[in-house]
Amino acid sequence: MKPDSVEIVLVRPARGANVAAACRAMKNMGLERLCLVGERLDMDRPEVRALAYGAWDVLDGARRAASLEAAVAASTLVVATSSRPGGGDWTPRRLAAEGAARAGGGAASIVFGPEASGLTNEEQALCHQRVVIPAHPDHRSLNLAQAVLVVAYEIWLSAADVQPPPAPDRAAAGEIEEAVQALRQGLLGIGYLSAASPEPILAELRALVVRAQPTPREVTLLRGIARQVAWAAAQIARGREADG
Amino acid sequence: MKPDSVEIVLVRPARGANVAAACRAMKNMGLERLCLVGERLDMDRPEVRALAYGAWDVLDGARRAASLEAAVAASTLVVATSSRPGGGDWTPRRLAAEGAARAGGGAASIVFGPEASGLTNEEQALCHQRVVIPAHPDHRSLNLAQAVLVVAYEIWLSAADVQPPPAPDRAAAGEIEEAVQALRQGLLGIGYLSAASPEPILAELRALVVRAQPTPREVTLLRGIARQVAWAAAQIARGREADG
Repeated sequence: MKPDSVEIVLVRPARGANVAAACRAMKNMGLERLCLVGERLDMDRPEVRALAYGAWDVLDGARRAASLEAAVAASTLVVATSSRPGGGDWTPRRLAAEGAARAGGGAASIVFGPEASGLTNEEQALCHQRVVIPAHPDHRSLNLAQAVLVVAYEIWLSAADVQPPPAPDRAAAGEIEEAVQALRQGLLGIGYLSAASPEPILAELRALVVRAQPTPREVTLLRGIARQVAWAAAQIARGREADG
Repeated sequence: MKPDSVEIVLVRPARGANVAAACRAMKNMGLERLCLVGERLDMDRPEVRALAYGAWDVLDGARRAASLEAAVAASTLVVATSSRPGGGDWTPRRLAAEGAARAGGGAASIVFGPEASGLTNEEQALCHQRVVIPAHPDHRSLNLAQAVLVVAYEIWLSAADVQPPPAPDRAAAGEIEEAVQALRQGLLGIGYLSAASPEPILAELRALVVRAQPTPREVTLLRGIARQVAWAAAQIARGREADG
């Protein structure tokens, strides 16, 4: 669904804190259109406004409607959210995937009822589709702003052009092997690897390094360690010669 | 991921309200294990406890840890959440899909930083994988409890599909860190790390080792190398004393 085709409708919310937190969740997920149905709440206390961090424009720009019927009159898809599973419910993910087609190019209202009681049966009857957020069956009731977030998150994911993150550089196998051989020399020098049979342990170290898919920079670090270990070995050997 | 293999770790949260709301979000999504790092907050005010509606057991049963390092020591996968995208980030969905395999059957810690500042660089360096919640690029910063919810929601959705993978043993974060600290000592001793500023290079080495997801056996090898390098450093120091 395209975020600008979606309006979040909060019906008779009891707590200004929840409305404010819902605004922030909407803004995080690229939704900007909010409609409030019912009594006006006191939204001016600083601790309430702080919950709408970064989303004061959504909060202050919210549309007001006297009833759910009035709120959703212009929408081609009206979705009721509910914490009580019934027949034919959609998940938020399915709403995000199929909502645009179902709305036929028009606007979609996604409706959330009051915190304690949810939407009335009459209000549910005004809606075209129910959405139930998957949750633990013993603890189905999400906080209002949390429910708004889950729905908004799925809409955002469906709309966003998610670019796979750029993969970091990877060192070539030959570079890795040079570093492994340098470590071999250094670790033989300080007596960590047995001169008689260095390969089994070296193979384990190689497997560890290869599995990490090191960057060229990291291979350079490993060669630097190998060089310094070899230097230490040479110092020790020199000390022994001097003693002997 | 199986919910009972996941622990949510909140590092130095500033607001008890967020901790309480995070508990409710966890409980909604079947997560029960919480660890709190940092100063103890006042969680007893009724308006705070109300935000943990239905999840008071999670709140009251939270484990306490003095540091992030202590909090995650037993986990085989440590995930840092961040609002700043970087290279190689996972989405919460990918974490839910691949986290169990990555943890190799062990426990996963999912770490959330303080509300205002997020995790420090040092704390991020202790983590094996970053997760960034997809959000509008101009409004990336989710409320703490909202961020916990999104991650928990994806884990809950994935839990039904989880096939426990036949994964190799993975070393716990605490074991890896002990090996890294042993390497630190050895590499300082032979002058590879600068005594004035060993941490940047050490952080790169740690990242390499963590990315390889070492087995306990491999961590033992690394500790053996560190011990032998430290021995070499001691030999050199002794030789110098004898010369002097």
